[in-house]
Amino acid sequence: MMFDRTIRHCRQCGALVARRLPDDGDTKERAICTVCNTVHYENPLNVVGTVPHWGEQVLLCKRNIEPRKGKWTLPAGFMELGESTSEGAARETTEEAGAQFIMEDLFTVMSVPRVGQVHLYYRARLTSDVFDPGHETMEARLFKEDEIPWDELAFRTVKETLEHYFADRRAGHFSTHAFDIA
Amino acid sequence: MMFDRTIRHCRQCGALVARRLPDDGDTKERAICTVCNTVHYENPLNVVGTVPHWGEQVLLCKRNIEPRKGKWTLPAGFMELGESTSEGAARETTEEAGAQFIMEDLFTVMSVPRVGQVHLYYRARLTSDVFDPGHETMEARLFKEDEIPWDELAFRTVKETLEHYFADRRAGHFSTHAFDIA
Ligand SMILES: [Zn+2]
Ligand SMILES: [Zn+2]
Repeated sequence: MMFDRTIRHCRQCGALVARRLPDDGDTKERAICTVCNTVHYENPLNVVGTVPHWGEQVLLCKRNIEPRKGKWTLPAGFMELGESTSEGAARETTEEAGAQFIMEDLFTVMSVPRVGQVHLYYRARLTSDVFDPGHETMEARLFKEDEIPWDELAFRTVKETLEHYFADRRAGHFSTHAFDIA
Repeated sequence: MMFDRTIRHCRQCGALVARRLPDDGDTKERAICTVCNTVHYENPLNVVGTVPHWGEQVLLCKRNIEPRKGKWTLPAGFMELGESTSEGAARETTEEAGAQFIMEDLFTVMSVPRVGQVHLYYRARLTSDVFDPGHETMEARLFKEDEIPWDELAFRTVKETLEHYFADRRAGHFSTHAFDIA
């Protein structure tokens, strides 16, 4: 989902906003309404997803939507109001792959400040190898490590998560990996 | 920071929005502009902070701002655009406590869907026991486990993080704890 998040008008009254320092000691310029003075904060978005695994294989989805249409991804999407990170990750896995699975532990937490996002992936144990992908996915299929289309992955966060997954699997121990992507 | 996040007017053109299903297959009602059709997504916010420790003591800050003015908290605040979770956690620790420290690993990741927030805390090793708190903090001081004002803590996420911190410390091993708070 790409969309223009720039704030031009006040969400409360519709008047134009101006970029300036608020009067409360805040040190960052904000979009402030020129009429009612509402301060509009702009914050990072969370992307939540899973590493669905079946034996030594991992489930990837071929994207049917922009951006990166035709590239392969782990099931993931924007976290919604009213859900937790793990609930959102499970929802995206159901929507994009039509998979059946049991949620496991938080696996990667990756900040991508350049685009204002934090990506959180959970491991998920598949309980079936039959998938019923939604309209956002062209194809959902299982890959062994040496079959992963490394040059056809949609996002850097997917590549990093898969690399950590197979490394931890070889080491026989999974932990949570938190890091920044410049 | 409490503020009304309800979207009444379009951020692009200022016209009124209506709550309805978008035309793209989305299954949730969104605030959609009645004039230019811009879809406004509302997403959870991240709160980032630290557990600053000095020997067997932990640093808490007495809040000088609402909500929970006068209650004790770990240094934390809303993550900003352009920073990572750990950069935001470090910034809040500097702003609220004026502490000197070295950032360590991600410690807790707590979803609070009822208020649309995710709280992420890092451990941070203090390199000085002298603090210079900002205007948001009445007092910053160190507490041993048996001195923690458990009934005077500002937030449930602070209590949960401190409980996990002292439990892991006793066990001699820190890991990342991810869970939901109903
Ligand atoms: Zn206004
Ligand atoms: Zn509009």
